[in-house]
Amino acid sequence: MEYKQWQLAKRPVGEPTSENWHFATVTLPVVEQGQIAVKIKYISLDPAMRGWMNDGKSYIEPVQIGEVMRAGTVGEVIESKSSQFAVGDHVYGHFGVQEYAVVSEEGVHKVDPNLAPLERYLGVLGMPGMTAYFGLLKTGLPQPGETVVVSGAAGAVGTVVGQIAKIKGCRVVGIAGGKDKCDYLTNELGFDAAVDYKADDLPKALKAACPKGIDVYFDNVGGDILDVVLTRINIRARIVICGAISQYNNTTPVKGPSNYLSLLVNRARMEGIVVFDNVKEYPMAAKDMATWIGEGKLKAKEHVEVGLENFPDTLMMLFKGENFGKLVLKVEHNA
Amino acid sequence: MEYKQWQLAKRPVGEPTSENWHFATVTLPVVEQGQIAVKIKYISLDPAMRGWMNDGKSYIEPVQIGEVMRAGTVGEVIESKSSQFAVGDHVYGHFGVQEYAVVSEEGVHKVDPNLAPLERYLGVLGMPGMTAYFGLLKTGLPQPGETVVVSGAAGAVGTVVGQIAKIKGCRVVGIAGGKDKCDYLTNELGFDAAVDYKADDLPKALKAACPKGIDVYFDNVGGDILDVVLTRINIRARIVICGAISQYNNTTPVKGPSNYLSLLVNRARMEGIVVFDNVKEYPMAAKDMATWIGEGKLKAKEHVEVGLENFPDTLMMLFKGENFGKLVLKVEHNA
Repeated sequence: MEYKQWQLAKRPVGEPTSENWHFATVTLPVVEQGQIAVKIKYISLDPAMRGWMNDGKSYIEPVQIGEVMRAGTVGEVIESKSSQFAVGDHVYGHFGVQEYAVVSEEGVHKVDPNLAPLERYLGVLGMPGMTAYFGLLKTGLPQPGETVVVSGAAGAVGTVVGQIAKIKGCRVVGIAGGKDKCDYLTNELGFDAAVDYKADDLPKALKAACPKGIDVYFDNVGGDILDVVLTRINIRARIVICGAISQYNNTTPVKGPSNYLSLLVNRARMEGIVVFDNVKEYPMAAKDMATWIGEGKLKAKEHVEVGLENFPDTLMMLFKGENFGKLVLKVEHNA
Repeated sequence: MEYKQWQLAKRPVGEPTSENWHFATVTLPVVEQGQIAVKIKYISLDPAMRGWMNDGKSYIEPVQIGEVMRAGTVGEVIESKSSQFAVGDHVYGHFGVQEYAVVSEEGVHKVDPNLAPLERYLGVLGMPGMTAYFGLLKTGLPQPGETVVVSGAAGAVGTVVGQIAKIKGCRVVGIAGGKDKCDYLTNELGFDAAVDYKADDLPKALKAACPKGIDVYFDNVGGDILDVVLTRINIRARIVICGAISQYNNTTPVKGPSNYLSLLVNRARMEGIVVFDNVKEYPMAAKDMATWIGEGKLKAKEHVEVGLENFPDTLMMLFKGENFGKLVLKVEHNA
């Protein structure tokens, strides 16, 4: 059977463009013992993908030229030579930006479409949710009454960070781009305040939104916003470095935080996180998250684009700040 | 009685010059109840002094224009209206850059010139020693067999950091400027390797000196050296931000660490320290340090310049990297 897949054609310099991609037609391999064939339904679009397109050492191997682009996905098992999965099962795995995949059973796990819409397993019930949960709770260490600020607040990770911080009794301030996103954070998700970095005078607005300073900052964006936050942190503040989307398409060196000596003055800490380190604790986190969703304390928001052919443009929405909630691509138009 | 003192005349922009100082003649105030008069013998010269000359919020109040410059000092009590101190006692306190001081008994403590030379209470037995001890052990958390790198390694704090890391069973690499300093670190202080940032290709030399990567980095200098170290850190590395002497005289914004996203990739931590936070634990640390000195495991090195009139030039030696060991100024020429 032939199907379509997006391959990395060339490593990007700066923003990925059409020349970095090849929309290839390939043939589905035979399913071997211990493998399954999956029809992919939803593809996760994540800022981390930009890093996987680069060469060089990171927390995970780069995607090689000519390979299918790596992505978290959910789909349905259409053929199985695995004792763990049956035809008709819905599964999560890194199946790539394509219509079908044949993969070994390792790293694949079942998801239940009756408990939640499939795309949610790429968001609050998937990697972004886990990233928010472990990054905030294990590294941010928020205490009741403290002020937690999150950037990229209307994104897949940010929305969850803010809501968990509220559940933990914190004052929560989101930084996002645009009035709609900011209104959503305060009106729908219960954030105490939101700062529109595109419209507001950020230093002034952040000061007003955080009258007691900042105890925890969960950073998804880096760049100037990180530098402004550093001027407002409290003694023993914790800064969680989850990402730096403002810097991923740089053609010049990454902008390091000029105000990092605020860490010294404030005896504060800046620490990086990688969600995969918490694999063993995912079930515990998933249980907490499910409870909070059931109680109405944790709301999910997905932004669904449609059509595998639209992958390159959809990915760019992340870097332009055009997504609102967890960005996913639905593979088929009529499904 | 009249005496000399160095006052802050003007806040510096960039490197302090003669116009920032005023060598004033002042009159010793009357000693009130609860106060002592001290004849100052040795003055500590520390990178932090540059920060105290700036206006603005920090971990300690700035020195005001027209005030005597703040400094850690040791001296002898020449008059006492305090029940805690007698004439002839030797004492440590922030008595300032001057010949005499009248101060309240708070924040003053006795030192014993029979146990160690007076100037040592400004170095390994004083703030730099405490900074090294608590910064390394409480924030760096070195484990036996790990690689510890320290910059400003031949300075007051660096020499002690490296030696304590050796005592704790680590591989220790010092970064310092010049062959003499590097030789001293490896030949006299037992560092496993030293890198001369002025002569060596730093990325290459650091890689060679740290074949297993870097687990703890104790940073006194900031700037390019911090950025190079960030490319060599291991998973869960700890970076202790103690200072950034390369940046203190900047007239442009501080150079933030461009490679800070290495914290993310490596789930590593960067944390600032201020020694004063550990006041209650100083006695415990002093006991450890005295034991190590007694066992010959911890060596002290002071760099003594002479003459109060030479204070401005002596201070600049720190920023030029001209001191070798703890820099102190002996107030009198013939004493």
